[in-house]
Amino acid sequence: MPVKSISLSHGSGGALMHGLIRNIFLSRFDNPIIRGLSDSAILPYKEKIAFTTDSFVVNPVIFPGGDIGKLAVCGSVNDLVVSGARPEFLSLGIIAEEGLEIGLLEQISDSIAAAARKEKVSIVTGDFKVVEKGACDKIFINTCGVGRVVKKLPIMNISPHDKVIVSGNVGSHGMAVLSKRKGVDFGFNIKSDCAGLGSLLLPILAKSNVIKFMRDPTRGGIATTLNEIARARGLGIVINEKDIPVSGKVRAASELLGLDVLYLANEGAAVIIVENAAVAKTLRQLRKHPLGRNARVIGEVTAKQKGHVILNTSIGTQRIIDMLAHDPLPRIC
Amino acid sequence: MPVKSISLSHGSGGALMHGLIRNIFLSRFDNPIIRGLSDSAILPYKEKIAFTTDSFVVNPVIFPGGDIGKLAVCGSVNDLVVSGARPEFLSLGIIAEEGLEIGLLEQISDSIAAAARKEKVSIVTGDFKVVEKGACDKIFINTCGVGRVVKKLPIMNISPHDKVIVSGNVGSHGMAVLSKRKGVDFGFNIKSDCAGLGSLLLPILAKSNVIKFMRDPTRGGIATTLNEIARARGLGIVINEKDIPVSGKVRAASELLGLDVLYLANEGAAVIIVENAAVAKTLRQLRKHPLGRNARVIGEVTAKQKGHVILNTSIGTQRIIDMLAHDPLPRIC
Repeated sequence: MPVKSISLSHGSGGALMHGLIRNIFLSRFDNPIIRGLSDSAILPYKEKIAFTTDSFVVNPVIFPGGDIGKLAVCGSVNDLVVSGARPEFLSLGIIAEEGLEIGLLEQISDSIAAAARKEKVSIVTGDFKVVEKGACDKIFINTCGVGRVVKKLPIMNISPHDKVIVSGNVGSHGMAVLSKRKGVDFGFNIKSDCAGLGSLLLPILAKSNVIKFMRDPTRGGIATTLNEIARARGLGIVINEKDIPVSGKVRAASELLGLDVLYLANEGAAVIIVENAAVAKTLRQLRKHPLGRNARVIGEVTAKQKGHVILNTSIGTQRIIDMLAHDPLPRIC
Repeated sequence: MPVKSISLSHGSGGALMHGLIRNIFLSRFDNPIIRGLSDSAILPYKEKIAFTTDSFVVNPVIFPGGDIGKLAVCGSVNDLVVSGARPEFLSLGIIAEEGLEIGLLEQISDSIAAAARKEKVSIVTGDFKVVEKGACDKIFINTCGVGRVVKKLPIMNISPHDKVIVSGNVGSHGMAVLSKRKGVDFGFNIKSDCAGLGSLLLPILAKSNVIKFMRDPTRGGIATTLNEIARARGLGIVINEKDIPVSGKVRAASELLGLDVLYLANEGAAVIIVENAAVAKTLRQLRKHPLGRNARVIGEVTAKQKGHVILNTSIGTQRIIDMLAHDPLPRIC
């Protein structure tokens, strides 16, 4: 039976969302730029300009390690960075619910301003709408990011035997938002990794040709991002469970709740594809930076199992890891 | 007593919104580009690039003359055009409520695609979020527009004795949305003027230097837009009630409902400031185009009454027209 209405899973970043985007949007808006389906569009001006959009509906609006304002800045900054561009300008579109406390709006705006300063982007244009009580949940924010391309990173760069690196521990954003929303007390705090990746990745991009491709594994986690890469490139990716960096706290919490860290959202980590020969150098560079301290090779690209992601589990078995199918955790960003 | 929470009037486009933007946002995000406070930011690349954002929360999502999709395309297109830029690229950020009918999403997407084709813009990047039922009202859309500047139109261009033109009848968008939302039956239909202004205004901009400044009078209507211009330029504007083009239907409906057409939103009209000597030529050019058929000179810029808008009424009196203060009609766009 055909699906007749939108479900939360359509917004999960996973398989249903990809289907919807293909069937409803790409079929109607088709053009050579959108066909790239990358984190940013590359606009063909004299200088190549990257352009990206993201809406943020995270609940709760304030969570351990950040808030919707910081998230909105870092989210668009990171979409530019992983596209090989230097974040320069942001737009800010706010939809607020009637009755929103001015103090909360000020706190979120402080957070936007602080994140923009840290990430060296200017907020240059904005829009502010108010809807009546009950027509939106507190505040939604859209940011678009614009910046010059430093290095083109087409997905066709990726070849078999390339290595897959993650720049830091995975799963902390999803777990931080979940635990705050549900009021779960693990006996310890889990903070979101919410951070801008410019200072970690732009110097490496600018100085060398070792990075072939990047993407930030937000909604749907690294499982979904790796599937996107494997499908778009038409190659396989094999990852090793024991190599995936996860903090002890996030591991304990995810075991407790029966959640798979591979599907939990990240907001301050990147998946980075490098040539095998460049791995040691890239890891050295990443680990010099606080955000890259836990960078690890988690797997490699393979000509076998085209379009699939395979996990070598800690207990010695292999299984196919698919995109996120149903959303255990809506409004994560 | 200081205001502690956001009210609908904070989103009206009027005085309260301007205060909020100044106090909360501009104070925190200050930079030379945002200080311009125009419809688009001008980004200092080799080619000057205009960049603008708008969120659309209109209720109902389908109204006579358009829907939220067409509105979202035309709104960002028009912000670029009145900034003197050729619309080229759009982003599309959608927030949908769980349960939204797929058929409605397809209809809105068709409308976006048709408007984008007509306005010659490509949708190049997007984002799709879903929130649980009750967390937003059906669908909200953000579009950001990007395009090359054809002609710089700094507000300092405006001088005393310049004439103020409106490109078409005013008030029809506001009245169309209002009557549909409230189910008012006037005995006749009022259609929104929702349209992209590129084909009307870009040829005039490209071919001549007669246009000094433009702005599209959306939320808050021409009263609010003229006040923005008068304040920002530090000059006065005098308009003549009898010269303001209003369709008979919108005039009848506004009299019936006791609403002032000067404050009703427009989505397919521009306020255009031209030198006195260029008026006849500009009107001739505008009137050649279906969207400019009703173009009229409605008043002029004056060195007196700096920062104010004065209305010469039809009954021979004068009164000061202020920005919209309270919002009679939220979610108009």
